[in-house]
Amino acid sequence: MIHPVILCGGGGTRLWPRSRLAHPKPFLPLLGERTLFEATLDRCSDRTIFAPPIVVTGSGHIDFVQAQSATVEDIRIVVEPSARNTAPAIGLAAALLPADAVMLVCPSDHHIADEAAFLAAAQSAAVLAGQDWLVALGIEAKRPETGFGYILRGDPIPGGYRVQRFIEKPDHARAEQFLKDGGYSWNGGIFAFRAGNYLRELAQHRPDMARSVQQAVAAGKRVGTMFHPDPAAFAEITPDSIDYAVMENTSRAAVVAADMGWSDIGNWEALKNARTADADGNVQLGAGELVDCRNVMIDSDGPRVSVIGLEDVVVVVDGDEILVTSMAGAQRVGKLGGASSQ
Amino acid sequence: MIHPVILCGGGGTRLWPRSRLAHPKPFLPLLGERTLFEATLDRCSDRTIFAPPIVVTGSGHIDFVQAQSATVEDIRIVVEPSARNTAPAIGLAAALLPADAVMLVCPSDHHIADEAAFLAAAQSAAVLAGQDWLVALGIEAKRPETGFGYILRGDPIPGGYRVQRFIEKPDHARAEQFLKDGGYSWNGGIFAFRAGNYLRELAQHRPDMARSVQQAVAAGKRVGTMFHPDPAAFAEITPDSIDYAVMENTSRAAVVAADMGWSDIGNWEALKNARTADADGNVQLGAGELVDCRNVMIDSDGPRVSVIGLEDVVVVVDGDEILVTSMAGAQRVGKLGGASSQ
Repeated sequence: MIHPVILCGGGGTRLWPRSRLAHPKPFLPLLGERTLFEATLDRCSDRTIFAPPIVVTGSGHIDFVQAQSATVEDIRIVVEPSARNTAPAIGLAAALLPADAVMLVCPSDHHIADEAAFLAAAQSAAVLAGQDWLVALGIEAKRPETGFGYILRGDPIPGGYRVQRFIEKPDHARAEQFLKDGGYSWNGGIFAFRAGNYLRELAQHRPDMARSVQQAVAAGKRVGTMFHPDPAAFAEITPDSIDYAVMENTSRAAVVAADMGWSDIGNWEALKNARTADADGNVQLGAGELVDCRNVMIDSDGPRVSVIGLEDVVVVVDGDEILVTSMAGAQRVGKLGGASSQ
Repeated sequence: MIHPVILCGGGGTRLWPRSRLAHPKPFLPLLGERTLFEATLDRCSDRTIFAPPIVVTGSGHIDFVQAQSATVEDIRIVVEPSARNTAPAIGLAAALLPADAVMLVCPSDHHIADEAAFLAAAQSAAVLAGQDWLVALGIEAKRPETGFGYILRGDPIPGGYRVQRFIEKPDHARAEQFLKDGGYSWNGGIFAFRAGNYLRELAQHRPDMARSVQQAVAAGKRVGTMFHPDPAAFAEITPDSIDYAVMENTSRAAVVAADMGWSDIGNWEALKNARTADADGNVQLGAGELVDCRNVMIDSDGPRVSVIGLEDVVVVVDGDEILVTSMAGAQRVGKLGGASSQ
């Protein structure tokens, strides 16, 4: 059995104004009728493959998590007392599982178009995890993205590759070189390992963090489906990501290739690209009209939007906020006054 | 005394969605706090120069006209029973005035930035009108506009020029040639003549129209400040503009130069150009934020509009309608589904 550990943190200001503090990205139906969080649960719902999920989230998201996971039996919800990034969040889940349990860490705000490919990759990763590897899913790099971390493959092992190196977000020239060289894939933030192996690596590379995580769990409280780690112990932790704290340091890192129509939906351009466009590259959600437009997306929650003569532009209407951005400008949405002053 | 005749017809779909059937262009405060109609009345309010105005309008606009001219003493409102274009509308006013009265015909949906220049031009035109010329104000042509008619100057006369020729909207190449050649000005739709001269020319060039106008006035009814021409007589008229029916045919056409910051505000680009921009060429009305934008206008009646990375774009928010158009696309606004299905 694979134990899904679903991470539900972060606000997602880069999809402002649709995504806001009051209705964050994982809990929005950005693609189809299911929210990204619901779709993440759906992907791990085959109980012949997956154990009931553990969701790790902040207190601000509990209402959303509960409402959107009401039908998931035996779910466990771990409520982070404070935001400390992914390494401690995953540590909480690991400490609540048996040491030999294979975890599959899944962000809840990504999109995966090809579920069969996801399942195949998850199962391959789980096999390697069972052999005590710490496994990252490597997303086939299709463009010189500068917004993602990269993974460089090393020697092949049965079912995957050793990781030669994790590389932080590169500049454009380096990203192009990666594509040319081959052997590089995107780090999609999906990981598989035994709970005990993760905690052992954490203890080795971030001993203080590992100790605080164990204390927070030991002194935590279970209330129904929810588990509340001890706030004081958890507050001690210096925030860090699983990539920095564990994956870049372990000698047992492996990568499994996953070509599964993955997108982090990291900004409006990425969301547009994950949606189905017409012959002119336009996407229209909500009432509106596009005249002489190419590669334009309208996403309105009410008012009609009429667009004339534009190319590579996104128009979003969300209540009292309207965003009009070039595709290039989509990277800067999170820095807008409206997005940062919510 | 100059008798202002203010024409208030037309819907103005080219400034949709701000201008709509329910709130048409002349009655909107598009530039400053006064509406275009109020500003037109203001320009003719000096009673040492101007007699009380005659407003010619359709029944759909009466409420706006009355509300926005409530403080104008001795105003007369002529209510067109049906829309028959400008030649008959001006005929109605002419037939209600003494034959030797000098009329100044003014559209009510244009902008004139320099009122002193307007007054000077109006008075020059009135002098020529008193000498039995039919006078057009010639707006200095500053760009190769294809949306306006042109007037070619002929021989000079004291205070102006004979009109050599009126030219309909040219294509771009011809418009550029006009600018190069010189002697061409824009036809701004502002005219001065004696009432009797206008009616005489109308009788000569459009005898049926002239007869129907006289009958409509003879059988019309006065109700307070309003005059209602006879609907049946007026309905007989084949619609025509003053340009086609009279100005292009008379041998007594004159033109007076007027460099008065005139704009017909014929589309969103023209309105943007008539407004004060910041150093980047941006104009912002209503809440919003412009990031990395040049020559962008936001005009919102409520929601905040955030724009990133665009150039030469207009964003208009009006209740349930949002327009996003390139400057070039501004010409096509009137043909949008929303604009044409009001």
